[in-house]
Amino acid sequence: MSETTSVTFGDWMAGVQGTMEADMSAYLPAATAIPAKLHEAMRYALLGGGKRVRPLLVYAAGAVSGGAAQTLSRAASAVEMIHAYSLVHDDMPCMDDDDLRRGKATVHVAYDEATALLVGDALQSQAFAVLAGAEGVPPARLVAMLRVLAEAAGSSGMCGGQAIDLDSVGLSLTREQLERMHQLKTGALLRASVLLGAMAGKDLDAAELQALHDYSRAIGLAFQVVDDVLDATADSATLGKTAGKDAADNKPTYVSILGLEASVALAERLRRDAHAALDAFGDGAQRLRELADLIVQRKA
Amino acid sequence: MSETTSVTFGDWMAGVQGTMEADMSAYLPAATAIPAKLHEAMRYALLGGGKRVRPLLVYAAGAVSGGAAQTLSRAASAVEMIHAYSLVHDDMPCMDDDDLRRGKATVHVAYDEATALLVGDALQSQAFAVLAGAEGVPPARLVAMLRVLAEAAGSSGMCGGQAIDLDSVGLSLTREQLERMHQLKTGALLRASVLLGAMAGKDLDAAELQALHDYSRAIGLAFQVVDDVLDATADSATLGKTAGKDAADNKPTYVSILGLEASVALAERLRRDAHAALDAFGDGAQRLRELADLIVQRKA
Repeated sequence: MSETTSVTFGDWMAGVQGTMEADMSAYLPAATAIPAKLHEAMRYALLGGGKRVRPLLVYAAGAVSGGAAQTLSRAASAVEMIHAYSLVHDDMPCMDDDDLRRGKATVHVAYDEATALLVGDALQSQAFAVLAGAEGVPPARLVAMLRVLAEAAGSSGMCGGQAIDLDSVGLSLTREQLERMHQLKTGALLRASVLLGAMAGKDLDAAELQALHDYSRAIGLAFQVVDDVLDATADSATLGKTAGKDAADNKPTYVSILGLEASVALAERLRRDAHAALDAFGDGAQRLRELADLIVQRKA
Repeated sequence: MSETTSVTFGDWMAGVQGTMEADMSAYLPAATAIPAKLHEAMRYALLGGGKRVRPLLVYAAGAVSGGAAQTLSRAASAVEMIHAYSLVHDDMPCMDDDDLRRGKATVHVAYDEATALLVGDALQSQAFAVLAGAEGVPPARLVAMLRVLAEAAGSSGMCGGQAIDLDSVGLSLTREQLERMHQLKTGALLRASVLLGAMAGKDLDAAELQALHDYSRAIGLAFQVVDDVLDATADSATLGKTAGKDAADNKPTYVSILGLEASVALAERLRRDAHAALDAFGDGAQRLRELADLIVQRKA
């Protein structure tokens, strides 16, 4: 999975995505295990879809540090479980109230609200259980990785960003406020994905860690800018979720603050920043570069 | 905190409760830290109330194993954060829809549903962050403790029990089914509290671990039996939550299955089982014995 030489980016991505599907399925209790409805709904929320951007980042950063496959699999599954739980909760009626996700009915629609609440709660616990089961890194490193995940997920990371997002509906944010919100809401977990992949292997020096930090910051922002552009320009069928929802919900976005053209230009500049941050790494960071391109150039 | 000789049980309890209040406050971001509303609501949910049964169990088991104070504080705070998050989510309209908790308005009433959802989510993350910051145990042990917490919280533990509970409304469960539900819903985290306290200190042998397991099983069940008895016999002002709710919600309880008198007798039998399990420990387990008494003899 960490070979960057003869395998095309598309084949490498498909390989990670296939590995993820199989590994995450194995890291969840069987759909028949009691309570069966909860376990079936957890599988519905986690498996069978998604671009797996965060796992791809874990594996791509793991290629830089030489992380062991089993450690990368568990770290990648853990961040994806955190991401999946956040989608389940964000879609609930008391939050974004969305019926469609990845082209499927959202969990509270396919099941019910109480189940959706528990699915999210249990996926978060499972993320920590899965990461804590990694065996390819020294325990002290694993503890540090668990802290990175917990902090990225919590009130100073993803949950904090979501709280700011909810409080921003109808407000006119400055670009700085919008950026801070997204650095928490989306950026924190993307950054954690890169960090966890990097921590899974050999020790990186301070300059290398700073380079990965700069890379993460650039792609984290780019990811959100492109999301806003797509929400304003693509249709629901392409997105697999309800398009035009930000404007309908009166949410501040890069498009509403900067305009469409400047947002597209910003995303491209961030893509180049991400590449520049990786200059010191040479070929080992090829997958990270390709992921920066993917994040900015995606159509959904 | 681990001295059992000259300090009365009441003073020891008050000491742990005071330590918990101060330490958990320190383990949370300030109420003014952005996003302030979320952090304020997390403090509202966690601080200023509660019997702190799970922290007391952590400290009492830590007295058996000789766990370091800082490790016990973090482990106790982590289990209490998991417990507090579960209460916030269980009280939401899509679950038990309760307005009153510990004599205060529940979080979704005092704030709003979206905030309650995020408070629970962020408290769960914070639990793992706090435990992962423990420094008084070897990292390999700490990883094992994080796994114990994650598994007790997840779909094979607390969340699983809550799912079974929701699916049991209006059904007539057997006593075995009811017991299984409660061993997950309440028992798993109570057991984890005892285990985490025990793991915080010196290695215990297999017989000692089995004894603590038997103790945990007995008090876990006793806790729920007494909860059911109190729900049927006490008033809301005494309980600090809505009384008589189980019958009103048509939920199966020990009282509805066994009757009141047999439930009271069962709780007393479990209290004696808990004491018997601790026979091998001598004075070191005095706090655990006193907690078994407290759990069965409490009035709220």
